[in-house]
Amino acid sequence: MPRAEVREVIELLARGELTPEAAEARLAREPLVDLGFARLDARRGDRQGVPEAVLAEGKTPAQVAAIVSALHERGHETILVTRADDDVRAAVRAQVGEIEEDAEARLLWVARDVPEPAGSVTVVSAGTSDGPVVREVATCARLFGTAVRIQEDVGVAGLHRLALALDDLRAADCVVVVAGQDAALASVVGGLVTTPVIAVPTSTGYGVAAGGIAALLSMLTSCAAGVAVVNIDDGFGAATIAARIARAAAGAA
Amino acid sequence: MPRAEVREVIELLARGELTPEAAEARLAREPLVDLGFARLDARRGDRQGVPEAVLAEGKTPAQVAAIVSALHERGHETILVTRADDDVRAAVRAQVGEIEEDAEARLLWVARDVPEPAGSVTVVSAGTSDGPVVREVATCARLFGTAVRIQEDVGVAGLHRLALALDDLRAADCVVVVAGQDAALASVVGGLVTTPVIAVPTSTGYGVAAGGIAALLSMLTSCAAGVAVVNIDDGFGAATIAARIARAAAGAA
Amino acid sequence: MPRAEVREVIELLARGELTPEAAEARLAREPLVDLGFARLDARRGDRQGVPEAVLAEGKTPAQVAAIVSALHERGHETILVTRADDDVRAAVRAQVGEIEEDAEARLLWVARDVPEPAGSVTVVSAGTSDGPVVREVATCARLFGTAVRIQEDVGVAGLHRLALALDDLRAADCVVVVAGQDAALASVVGGLVTTPVIAVPTSTGYGVAAGGIAALLSMLTSCAAGVAVVNIDDGFGAATIAARIARAAAGAA
Amino acid sequence: MPRAEVREVIELLARGELTPEAAEARLAREPLVDLGFARLDARRGDRQGVPEAVLAEGKTPAQVAAIVSALHERGHETILVTRADDDVRAAVRAQVGEIEEDAEARLLWVARDVPEPAGSVTVVSAGTSDGPVVREVATCARLFGTAVRIQEDVGVAGLHRLALALDDLRAADCVVVVAGQDAALASVVGGLVTTPVIAVPTSTGYGVAAGGIAALLSMLTSCAAGVAVVNIDDGFGAATIAARIARAAAGAA
Amino acid sequence: MPRAEVREVIELLARGELTPEAAEARLAREPLVDLGFARLDARRGDRQGVPEAVLAEGKTPAQVAAIVSALHERGHETILVTRADDDVRAAVRAQVGEIEEDAEARLLWVARDVPEPAGSVTVVSAGTSDGPVVREVATCARLFGTAVRIQEDVGVAGLHRLALALDDLRAADCVVVVAGQDAALASVVGGLVTTPVIAVPTSTGYGVAAGGIAALLSMLTSCAAGVAVVNIDDGFGAATIAARIARAAAGAA
Amino acid sequence: MPRAEVREVIELLARGELTPEAAEARLAREPLVDLGFARLDARRGDRQGVPEAVLAEGKTPAQVAAIVSALHERGHETILVTRADDDVRAAVRAQVGEIEEDAEARLLWVARDVPEPAGSVTVVSAGTSDGPVVREVATCARLFGTAVRIQEDVGVAGLHRLALALDDLRAADCVVVVAGQDAALASVVGGLVTTPVIAVPTSTGYGVAAGGIAALLSMLTSCAAGVAVVNIDDGFGAATIAARIARAAAGAA
Amino acid sequence: MPRAEVREVIELLARGELTPEAAEARLAREPLVDLGFARLDARRGDRQGVPEAVLAEGKTPAQVAAIVSALHERGHETILVTRADDDVRAAVRAQVGEIEEDAEARLLWVARDVPEPAGSVTVVSAGTSDGPVVREVATCARLFGTAVRIQEDVGVAGLHRLALALDDLRAADCVVVVAGQDAALASVVGGLVTTPVIAVPTSTGYGVAAGGIAALLSMLTSCAAGVAVVNIDDGFGAATIAARIARAAAGAA
Amino acid sequence: MPRAEVREVIELLARGELTPEAAEARLAREPLVDLGFARLDARRGDRQGVPEAVLAEGKTPAQVAAIVSALHERGHETILVTRADDDVRAAVRAQVGEIEEDAEARLLWVARDVPEPAGSVTVVSAGTSDGPVVREVATCARLFGTAVRIQEDVGVAGLHRLALALDDLRAADCVVVVAGQDAALASVVGGLVTTPVIAVPTSTGYGVAAGGIAALLSMLTSCAAGVAVVNIDDGFGAATIAARIARAAAGAA
Repeated sequence: MPRAEVREVIELLARGELTPEAAEARLAREPLVDLGFARLDARRGDRQGVPEAVLAEGKTPAQVAAIVSALHERGHETILVTRADDDVRAAVRAQVGEIEEDAEARLLWVARDVPEPAGSVTVVSAGTSDGPVVREVATCARLFGTAVRIQEDVGVAGLHRLALALDDLRAADCVVVVAGQDAALASVVGGLVTTPVIAVPTSTGYGVAAGGIAALLSMLTSCAAGVAVVNIDDGFGAATIAARIARAAAGAA
Repeated sequence: MPRAEVREVIELLARGELTPEAAEARLAREPLVDLGFARLDARRGDRQGVPEAVLAEGKTPAQVAAIVSALHERGHETILVTRADDDVRAAVRAQVGEIEEDAEARLLWVARDVPEPAGSVTVVSAGTSDGPVVREVATCARLFGTAVRIQEDVGVAGLHRLALALDDLRAADCVVVVAGQDAALASVVGGLVTTPVIAVPTSTGYGVAAGGIAALLSMLTSCAAGVAVVNIDDGFGAATIAARIARAAAGAA
Repeated sequence: MPRAEVREVIELLARGELTPEAAEARLAREPLVDLGFARLDARRGDRQGVPEAVLAEGKTPAQVAAIVSALHERGHETILVTRADDDVRAAVRAQVGEIEEDAEARLLWVARDVPEPAGSVTVVSAGTSDGPVVREVATCARLFGTAVRIQEDVGVAGLHRLALALDDLRAADCVVVVAGQDAALASVVGGLVTTPVIAVPTSTGYGVAAGGIAALLSMLTSCAAGVAVVNIDDGFGAATIAARIARAAAGAA
Repeated sequence: MPRAEVREVIELLARGELTPEAAEARLAREPLVDLGFARLDARRGDRQGVPEAVLAEGKTPAQVAAIVSALHERGHETILVTRADDDVRAAVRAQVGEIEEDAEARLLWVARDVPEPAGSVTVVSAGTSDGPVVREVATCARLFGTAVRIQEDVGVAGLHRLALALDDLRAADCVVVVAGQDAALASVVGGLVTTPVIAVPTSTGYGVAAGGIAALLSMLTSCAAGVAVVNIDDGFGAATIAARIARAAAGAA
Repeated sequence: MPRAEVREVIELLARGELTPEAAEARLAREPLVDLGFARLDARRGDRQGVPEAVLAEGKTPAQVAAIVSALHERGHETILVTRADDDVRAAVRAQVGEIEEDAEARLLWVARDVPEPAGSVTVVSAGTSDGPVVREVATCARLFGTAVRIQEDVGVAGLHRLALALDDLRAADCVVVVAGQDAALASVVGGLVTTPVIAVPTSTGYGVAAGGIAALLSMLTSCAAGVAVVNIDDGFGAATIAARIARAAAGAA
Repeated sequence: MPRAEVREVIELLARGELTPEAAEARLAREPLVDLGFARLDARRGDRQGVPEAVLAEGKTPAQVAAIVSALHERGHETILVTRADDDVRAAVRAQVGEIEEDAEARLLWVARDVPEPAGSVTVVSAGTSDGPVVREVATCARLFGTAVRIQEDVGVAGLHRLALALDDLRAADCVVVVAGQDAALASVVGGLVTTPVIAVPTSTGYGVAAGGIAALLSMLTSCAAGVAVVNIDDGFGAATIAARIARAAAGAA
Repeated sequence: MPRAEVREVIELLARGELTPEAAEARLAREPLVDLGFARLDARRGDRQGVPEAVLAEGKTPAQVAAIVSALHERGHETILVTRADDDVRAAVRAQVGEIEEDAEARLLWVARDVPEPAGSVTVVSAGTSDGPVVREVATCARLFGTAVRIQEDVGVAGLHRLALALDDLRAADCVVVVAGQDAALASVVGGLVTTPVIAVPTSTGYGVAAGGIAALLSMLTSCAAGVAVVNIDDGFGAATIAARIARAAAGAA
Repeated sequence: MPRAEVREVIELLARGELTPEAAEARLAREPLVDLGFARLDARRGDRQGVPEAVLAEGKTPAQVAAIVSALHERGHETILVTRADDDVRAAVRAQVGEIEEDAEARLLWVARDVPEPAGSVTVVSAGTSDGPVVREVATCARLFGTAVRIQEDVGVAGLHRLALALDDLRAADCVVVVAGQDAALASVVGGLVTTPVIAVPTSTGYGVAAGGIAALLSMLTSCAAGVAVVNIDDGFGAATIAARIARAAAGAA
């Protein structure tokens, strides 16, 4: 049962639009799957939906494999695992088989019922070392049902490179800026477009740049209007909100 | 000449779609106004547009009054002054006259050609002390051309109050969460809606909450998908991106 | 309607132990009071209960007075306002009248149906400047229904003063340690008693002690078992958990 | 001689209720054991008691093994070693033999005279990656003599999962909340129960969540009453105070 | 009864060198004075001693006056009040009368039985704005019984000024370095003398120097041997340890 | 005797190029002036020189006035007082008379023997609120003997405003960038010029921008080559190094 | 086409001094090389120029090798790779061959058309462990076309070692100070010379020195005039601005 | 030539008590040894002296071996290498041979002309994991010529263990307190003794204790008089100042 449905039932119940009996009946059709260390919303499989996302970091490879396996058996929504290092991907591959992977972005996924693309997102990065996060944003956003364009290595220290990216920036329903040492890029892009901008600080760089705090602060204080920020290196989070913005702008629910 | 137009000309020039002469001619019609301490994009006044926004903090009341006055004389776009304390508002009022104000939100504005409302934003706050930022978000978003609903004092420590706000949260094209000590609200709201959520940490609270850093970190680490964050107390920034999201979702450019 | 009751109904509903109609009926008897900037759980007044607590900081005196007044009109639970400076207390006094106050602790309250004291808490502080927080803990804990003993100015730099406090420390069901520059007191007390210890760092002191972060960190790293910590200067929070511990230890619900 | 007894004698002496001679006599029966790098309170073994706890981190495996061995030879209280990695556990196992272990929680122990369980603690966590700390809390609390229920993977982003945990939360004498990126859980749980809540921030997560400071701050600023916090990842500390609270609430000394 | 005596009795008792009865008898001769908000060790007045020091910051003027008054009535040791602003000094002056003051250093004191000076301390500062702390060190150290030389405005940016101070630096038994923006002075002085150096970071300066953290870190990382550091602006603390070092070096107990 | 001369003598002495007697003789001609709280290098007045700079912050108005007066009496170098608020300027004016002032930049000075301007510096700022620091840089740099151009309110969010400043940026021997919330300006300017760039972070702005740390970090991590940074709000420091760079580039010693 | 040329064309275009057609023609002669993950300004090879610098950290060895290879094929400017560890250097060596390396400084480069040395820079360090950064500064500055002198292990704790370096410090057009734990060196050097000083904090040292923040703050608060700071361990950045200063002082463009 | 002598000559020169020729002659007898990456003060070997101390961290094993070898060849003062890991000690051992080592304390040394012990230092630590720093303090202090007593594992959570250490604490001329998670020990010891106390925060512990910042802050804010602090884990620094204090107190120069 997709998460959205569980929610719906519980809320109908809370607002009195559903009797408890009816609610119980609906919920009982496919109960939550409890693996002990994790609780999964098993899906009913009769509607196209949002991916089930699993953060691999902090879990053992065996745990991740068990979760993906359980989700896989029960239906056909997309399953997406983020921050999945080599061991995790190998463990899942051994158990589930038909997965797709991106080692650089530390992603693995089983794409099922991916929605028709609606709207578009342009991902722009300051430098080559921001590449893994760029790929995480792009792959996730595509799985969430939106078109993606990429413009890499566009630092503000060379504005002419930015000029070449202008068309793609202007054509998007939402722009995602990925940058670490050159976080000034968010301000500059924010001043050039009128669409919402989601900024992702990265942990690349050394000295005071190390870890990404400097980039985060720089992006938060941007004087350009229309910029909001997600956690450091959180390509998944940026993709989620960007895809929602783009799809809505294109008239998709 | 509205900022958007200046930009357009310069970019056409940069991309070779405009000869320098043509560009110069267009730009020359109404040059930038230089007050010495500030440079204003004087508007041509023949199109509906985005507000000119002035951050009062860090400027003297006389400087703000001079800027507003110069903008006012030259056209009819909306002028918006943020973080305007009593002295600033008095100085502007003395010089310009026909302004509107909100003392609690520290805003003053001259509303001209406000776009027809398109789409809607729901602003939800954790507590009464977040009120000034809530008002800043709401007033700004309305001036930017979107409808606004407000749900105040909805702390997660009392989930039944949140239940009462559910309809408004679900009805919006974008939700803005304003919270300080109870920043957990962003996570909880993020889990309840499928629209983009913009979170504004506030500087209310004492001890480790003072200044808003704890709220900022809490919101950035939110496990709920679809949440992005702006600077502490930055109601204006939240309103800008939220209005863009909402208007685009409603099909307005 | 006391908060506890509202909760109960909503949860019964969520678990299907109450039909929506029944829930609505019960909730409708006395609806939430909405002051615009605040939402109050109006009490039904037919059971002894927990105080309604209002954090004054961040609210205007007029707002606090309006909230207290609305709560006061509707029933007879205890109303407690914390961090209430002179202006706030004056505003409430002017409107409600029969309040009690403690200027040093920045508290005001209307005591109604205070539960019979059960169990006991000993509050111990390191120095005279911790006095306001000591008083906040003590007054709040008494209003929450537990007995309170106070031992002030017991710094670890003079262990003989601590010796004099030992009987009171041992006699309590819960000990609250209040300290700033001399936060080591929490470790020492934690090593002397076997009851739960709640530590409150204070913002007193200068240099690296200023603001209370040093005290907070010192208390969190305490090697003594059985110590947990609340926010800096949060006497109210410490009193709440301490009273719950003490009352439970004495067999009161 | 158990620590409690040593303390008792010294305090009787300090308060004049014991002559120095009598004190010396009692203390002489079983002197402290001095291993050079550590001082152990050897127990007399004639009373049920609190465990001797050893923090392995920062000690060499040989040192930990020597300490456990010395404690083991002298009596029968429970011995508990926390943050014991593989090398430490192997070293102790080689020397003492009859130990119990939990690799994930990095615990090893020799359970002796564990008190009859009294009262109960419910441990609730936000996500699977909080598992090791959950296990540390649970095992320690059981050794300290209280019953433990566990509810894992209950993030606030999915409130319906929290609903399933409500019965266990309400049934406990003390709730322990373990969370990292989703530290908002402490606020939400604090608003749902009336028992004391002990919150343990974890160091899971990335970006600004890494290391656990964001979780710590979020938990300290929680608006819900009745929540106190221990050090990051300090499952042992949380178990100690939680067990004391639970046992006292159940009438056990 | 001077603090040292109280301690002595308690320790004799703890080590069995005094029967409780004898201890009680000695302690009973002049009990601790309890003012409610403070506990004073009343002195017996029959030995030359260390000053009673009171930190005024965080106490009300009335509280400080009451403490000084109580100490004053009971004997003749030196009484020293630190961080005493104008209001505090006025309150004490009104009640006690015969006090001495230093407004710039925020000190007041009643000098009684000041020990014969033994040994010497040289206080060296980087700039004029460090003056208040220099005076606090100097006055306190003199009251503690040591000779003091002062060398102000000796920044490392002008080494020739340092050269003029060399004789005084070399002649001292202990050197105290007081510096904020120019905290490098501690390293340089540490390299020039072979006596112990106590460094006091000051909160003077702006930008990253504001508050004194930069000075503190700079002094702690000093490569020069023989330097130890006290809290920011803690002239009293520096004077205490410096006087002890100097007096011991001169053969005074 | 100007500082440079004192230095020269001491170094000649240190390197054995001057006998001590000769050194003493030269130094003795006009000894340092010792005001007790400050040591002044009295100038001999026979060479054009660098200004004597006095940081007023942290000194009393009387102290500053005494220092300026003493310097004034003894010669004719330029005297410059930075961070001089109204009280300080009034005190100096009352005692010395012929001073020049800039209230906004908090500067006062007596210009004597200002060197012929050589080379040029362009000061560019992001916004109007950076104005006081811009003025401090400009006035100081002129007193140090270089020409100054100013370009204010050139934020990167509007690149067309930057375009207007390009000629002045390219014409300078050194560029000083002054910015707070829009610190990205340093990166962008650094990418446009090939001259050395000195960046001054300012403490303007709110939320995470407050105090200037975010701007400082942003400027330090700039990807553009050729940028170095001074302390927050340190217009004087920036002017000093910028003037040295510009004068050297123009062939002036 | 060297970056400088691309810039020139674009700016001519922006200022109307070049028609778009002419611009396009010039730019079309040798377009940017797009490697997908990086965009290179391919050089035309007909002018002596600034090096192309590549930051290896954060890129894979294969990416760095591809970038260097592409740059190498197209021309003869100097190529410089910074923070290049063993794997990176091996990868480039395998593909390009004729590179020069400095393992300790983590540099590799292909020197082509290095400008005639003009002006000179003296690099002075506090200790042996600052050696890698010293070498990075020195090698880079030489490649940028200036003479370099080195004075290592000159800590302020031993001023006589500094005396030996004085001649080299005074002879330079720009001084670069490299220091970690002994960052006071920047202040001292700044007080001894009248040339611009660029300070590089290093991450050497332990305790509060670890990571270099203490050194950074110490250098920023230096009271000596004429000091500006770059990022921690940023030898490349320091070399860039130092070489520009030195070359300009020597009359080279 | 020992460092002290070099200093003496230079200072005599600076004060005119030595002609440059005489100075040169004396200095020339045995010049500084320059290894390129390090400058050594070669000793003349005719006086008992202070050790030459080398910080190994940040240097390669080969560099350390070369430095020790050069010092060793030239004389007979004590040579001391701190923070020397296994590789460093092996490299030195291979080259010099007759060294002494302490692996746990990461020390190696060649003891020559160690001064007769004078005065005594007591080192007291909070826990077993502070052992390495305890050993560093003890070995260094002995090499500097003072007697050392050690009291390990004396946490404040068990005051009776502290009681056993009292005699050693009272008998010393200087006490060094080494503690991490239980930094409160510094306050408690400071209240029990009247000798100078040097506190060394250690980086042991987890959560907010990790790295030692919490311990550092706790020790700096200690309310006990007579406590000064050195850098985290800086056993060498503590030993230096403690030995100076102890030796002076015992009348040794």
